[in-house]
Amino acid sequence: MKEEIICAISTPPGMGAIAVVRLSGEGCIALTDKVFVSPSGKKLVGVPANTVHFGRILYQNEVLDEVLVTVFHAPHSFTGEESVEISCHGSVYIQQKIVEGLLAQGARLAKAGEFTQRAFKNGKFDLSQAEAVADLIASSSRVSHRVAMNQMRGGFAGKLRELRDALLHFVSLIELELDFSEEDVEFADRGKLRELMTGIEEKIEVLADSFQLGNAIKNGILVAIIGETNAGKSTLLNLLLNEEKAIVSDIHGTTRDVIEDLVNIHGVTFRFIDTAGIRETTDTIEMLGIERTYRKLDQASIVLWMIDLTTPEEEVESLASSVIPRLEGKQVVLLFNKSDLVSKEVCMQKMSILPDLPAHRLLISAKQKESIVDLQNLLTVLAHIPDIGESDVIVTNLRHYEALTKALAALRRAKAGLDEGVSNDFISQDIRECMFYLGEITGQISTDEILGNIFSKFCIGK
Amino acid sequence: MKEEIICAISTPPGMGAIAVVRLSGEGCIALTDKVFVSPSGKKLVGVPANTVHFGRILYQNEVLDEVLVTVFHAPHSFTGEESVEISCHGSVYIQQKIVEGLLAQGARLAKAGEFTQRAFKNGKFDLSQAEAVADLIASSSRVSHRVAMNQMRGGFAGKLRELRDALLHFVSLIELELDFSEEDVEFADRGKLRELMTGIEEKIEVLADSFQLGNAIKNGILVAIIGETNAGKSTLLNLLLNEEKAIVSDIHGTTRDVIEDLVNIHGVTFRFIDTAGIRETTDTIEMLGIERTYRKLDQASIVLWMIDLTTPEEEVESLASSVIPRLEGKQVVLLFNKSDLVSKEVCMQKMSILPDLPAHRLLISAKQKESIVDLQNLLTVLAHIPDIGESDVIVTNLRHYEALTKALAALRRAKAGLDEGVSNDFISQDIRECMFYLGEITGQISTDEILGNIFSKFCIGK
Repeated sequence: MKEEIICAISTPPGMGAIAVVRLSGEGCIALTDKVFVSPSGKKLVGVPANTVHFGRILYQNEVLDEVLVTVFHAPHSFTGEESVEISCHGSVYIQQKIVEGLLAQGARLAKAGEFTQRAFKNGKFDLSQAEAVADLIASSSRVSHRVAMNQMRGGFAGKLRELRDALLHFVSLIELELDFSEEDVEFADRGKLRELMTGIEEKIEVLADSFQLGNAIKNGILVAIIGETNAGKSTLLNLLLNEEKAIVSDIHGTTRDVIEDLVNIHGVTFRFIDTAGIRETTDTIEMLGIERTYRKLDQASIVLWMIDLTTPEEEVESLASSVIPRLEGKQVVLLFNKSDLVSKEVCMQKMSILPDLPAHRLLISAKQKESIVDLQNLLTVLAHIPDIGESDVIVTNLRHYEALTKALAALRRAKAGLDEGVSNDFISQDIRECMFYLGEITGQISTDEILGNIFSKFCIGK
Repeated sequence: MKEEIICAISTPPGMGAIAVVRLSGEGCIALTDKVFVSPSGKKLVGVPANTVHFGRILYQNEVLDEVLVTVFHAPHSFTGEESVEISCHGSVYIQQKIVEGLLAQGARLAKAGEFTQRAFKNGKFDLSQAEAVADLIASSSRVSHRVAMNQMRGGFAGKLRELRDALLHFVSLIELELDFSEEDVEFADRGKLRELMTGIEEKIEVLADSFQLGNAIKNGILVAIIGETNAGKSTLLNLLLNEEKAIVSDIHGTTRDVIEDLVNIHGVTFRFIDTAGIRETTDTIEMLGIERTYRKLDQASIVLWMIDLTTPEEEVESLASSVIPRLEGKQVVLLFNKSDLVSKEVCMQKMSILPDLPAHRLLISAKQKESIVDLQNLLTVLAHIPDIGESDVIVTNLRHYEALTKALAALRRAKAGLDEGVSNDFISQDIRECMFYLGEITGQISTDEILGNIFSKFCIGK
């Protein structure tokens, strides 16, 4: 079936020096010729692949722009189809009108992610690699970029291929016995089979377990800042945001109480949550706000507990009673703030508060910007992000994680079946199910619904 | 002198499917080779001009991205220099890191407009055309796009060349006589000379006069909306903004009282000013606000006076006393709003208010969205924007207008000198001055200061 010709603006929205409009689909070069005029009158249809041509775009008998057009032939393009890229002046008006002109000639506006979807359909990469394209574009730190790049370059797909090969080997042994079931033969030693299965299980487990890290890398490591209202939480957060020379963006939570900020520290993304003050209250509305704060606190992997060195210890201890039970399993930093306002003796004395709480203790002055570098270094250490090599495979995608979890469950059923001596056809069925879920990740097994769902999250023009 | 190699992100800021990093300067292809690795190991230095090559960008021993690199040879590039365009995935992180990698190899970050400035230096176009590139990128309506495109394609430069040729012809006649001044000969008939001069003067006048139109096209036609506080000004403005399917942007004035909105109607840009309510007051602060409103009103070429059909006529008339003296020379539209709330009879009666005011009268309901199309059509008619053809030259640039005005003054001095029979060398000097100012527009006469001033207004990457 011949695909329709699609087109879209592929560069970021808005005004810039140049913008790129992309077309894909058989016949798109001839379609571009209908709006493109080169100074020599040369047609694009005849030019060699991967060449760039200067000319004008005409629309409704007006010269819309002077452009550079690059021509790609199938299958040597991003989508694997015949493709064209029009590099125009970055006026919003010109970008829109060029697309209008192409639509008028019979192209259709590309849906979100449709270029990448076509690349997937044409076997340019598997589904997990296609998804990595979106992650790569969204990557905002060294680590998240590295993980997405590894996935796009096929590290994940390679691992899954290994697993599938191992499973296929296993299931073929099982099914071979099935063929000879009347004769009650055993081609494979049960101990060996079990060993093989455990090996596969471990590999899937490693992948599934990497999701916790992958999720932290992709979405940022959740750091909750708690403390009394005047402890200096906002000052610290602004400081961390401003210190940051790289990319910073704001994500406003669904509630006004919880504001999240992404901060990139030493190549790692942290997601800071400035929580509403937690305190004893009987006010219902306020209790709801505090409840939300607690929920966020529960999700955080690092807790910065800001303590104002100038307030009495009793206040800290009143907060402690409600907070400490919730800190189990988290990395806790007691951040003693306003070191500039009190004497060294007071600092020392105060820093020994809550002696039973396992926590890092750091003296800072957010206002005087003292020891902020120490805090940044500590956060990077606590984040426990290992150095990711080019061959490391980290699962960052919830869809992949869920498929891995299901694959693991099926595999464990098969293993239990093996132990309990159930019939080979049941075991075989579980192994096939495990392979099915792994196939969902790479796209060997896919439905229009799954694909639609994945690619709709892409941006238009990708 | 060998130019430094410059580089910059040329696509709009932010995240998108793809982004383009541009390099220019002798040696930039070899420089790109230091960060680029093609699958076959092929170097970019050897490839033919205007070809595109797939490969990877390496930075600090990591694969930063898979990219397409286009190679241009001097002088066949935008800048006229050896150039490279790197089309990468549109992650902000990747864009920044690619630039970082290029800087590490010895490129320098381009200054605003530096690519275009180099194109000008290399004779790819004259200064007025270079300035048109910025206007083209900023163009947001059909008309402003057309005017910028005509200028970029050299229509303006052509006109100026004609003028300079005519002036040169004139001055050569005058200066020829000067050479033979001892002999008191007259090579040119004074009547003919005067005719020639008047012809040149008229042409410069036409250009200078086109600035009023050009300015309206480029910056939008100023429309002031006045009326009592509850007349429905904001509702109407929101409606016009929402009805607009194309480009709309907000420009907030320097004062809180005056908010300006750009609206594109039928290809023409209007700049709407929603004025603070004008009324009699003794409050000093409020009087200052009203004074600002009046100043804006004075600048407007179209005034939409909104009259609430449900308020008594006295109120309108009280406003009239202060406003009417300021409407002289403006296109006035009395907009009778809330037609849905009153009977036809009341409408008819009310619409005959202020019978002596020369104004268009239109009945609308902003709330019910009635007759808004009529208002849009009326505004387009009142804008008096002629249909701009491909050969029409309109001056949109204040710098050009000022140079034309100075050229005109010099020319008129020369003409007066001719009438008064002053010495030829004075006349010749005035003509040369006229030519100097025309040369400033095209950049034949330019200083680093003028150039710096012009190109600093460009965006980085252009």
